This record gives sequence, C-alpha cells and structure tokens, in this order.
Amino acid sequence: MVKAVNLNEKLAQFSEHWSPKIVAEYNGNDVMVVKFKGEFPFHSHAETDDFFLVLEGKMTMEYRDRTISVGPGELFIVPKGIEHRPVAEEEVKVLLIEPKGEPNSGDSTERAPAVKEWI
Amino acid sequence: MVKAVNLNEKLAQFSEHWSPKIVAEYNGNDVMVVKFKGEFPFHSHAETDDFFLVLEGKMTMEYRDRTISVGPGELFIVPKGIEHRPVAEEEVKVLLIEPKGEPNSGDSTERAPAVKEWI
Repeated sequence: MVKAVNLNEKLAQFSEHWSPKIVAEYNGNDVMVVKFKGEFPFHSHAETDDFFLVLEGKMTMEYRDRTISVGPGELFIVPKGIEHRPVAEEEVKVLLIEPKGEPNSGDSTERAPAVKEWI
Repeated sequence: MVKAVNLNEKLAQFSEHWSPKIVAEYNGNDVMVVKFKGEFPFHSHAETDDFFLVLEGKMTMEYRDRTISVGPGELFIVPKGIEHRPVAEEEVKVLLIEPKGEPNSGDSTERAPAVKEWI
C-alpha cells in the first residue's frame, strides 16, 4: 500500500446500495465501504463475526429480540451465528469487514450475495 | 454487544499515548482505539498485518524507504513483516485492529509492549 485509502473518495465512486466495495485487505479479510438504504433480509454468518463502523448517517441493527441504533463514529460487531438485519431509513455509509469470500447475505435465501469488487 | 461502541466516548476516557484500549472483538482480533503523539520505534509484526484508521488528526507511517501521510477518514494497512514506525507531530486518534495477544511493539527491542486493557 503506497498511499492511504481515503474512505470518502472511495464512497464517491459508486451510488448503489447493499453492494460492498473492497478498499483494502487485512489478514485475509476484505475491508469494504458500503452504502445501505432500506432493509436487508435477516441472515446470519455461521463462521464469522460481522464488523460495522458507521461513517456517516444512522442505521439500526435488528436482531430477532432487540434493535440497536448505530450512528456516525459508532461501531458494532454482530457475533457469528446471530441472525441480524441492517436497516437504514436514510442512506448510511459504513465500513464493513468480513473474511474474504464470505457472502454479505450470509445464509439468506431471500437475497443473493453481492459481488464484492475492488475500487 | 447490546449497544454500539461510540469511539469518541471511548477516546474521552484516557489521555496517555501509545496505549491501545480494547473496545470490541472481531474474529479473534482486538479492535482498539489509541492516541499517538511523537515517534514510535521501528518494528514489524512477522505474522500479522496491522490495520490503522485515522479518526482525528494526522500521522505519517514511515517505512525504511518511504513515508506515507494518513489523515482523518483514511485507513492504512501495514503488511506483515514490513518494518514501520507511526509518527504524529500532534496528537492523532486512531482505530487499530490487531490479532488478540499481538504486541503493539511487534519485534521492537526498544519498547516494551503496551498492556492492552478493555475500556
């Protein structure tokens, strides 16, 4: 890596929602930026925790039994195996970390995994 | 995790430099906030990449053959095995991710590893 990754510059390069873009690699994990708006289906990741850091905007992380608000400068880890659903009334910009190859949709049958591309 | 981790609230809880504080765990990694000011010794981590995201302020990451500037909203991964030295003229606030148990000082003989505590 010969220069730092500017997250706002990366976020300015795309507009679609729920489509994580890879900006760096860390120990076999994809470090990604993503824009959420609306509701994602409930899903879980059997083998991995899910890392979310909200960069701009607000979202909620819904579990089956509770809802957690996550605002700018706040991070949230969903433990492996726990069903969850990110929801954003307005667009939210998020830093996401998942092991390389992990489908963003986990075990969901409602939604196909996004193709994670580098930007 | 029953609420999100607010990084500014965590950073307000300590003032010492070069002393990472654990705020979350992700797949066996410690997710930490840290304040840097001054120069850290050159070191490397043989088995792990090093993840830095600058939250506030500016720093440089010095390699033996180049220096890279990292500002707010910018992230930087130091690949495993590469000698590096973070330097900050003024205080900088950083999100740091390292595998649990990894000494922040890597293989340095000039500096003892920090004791990483939860806050």
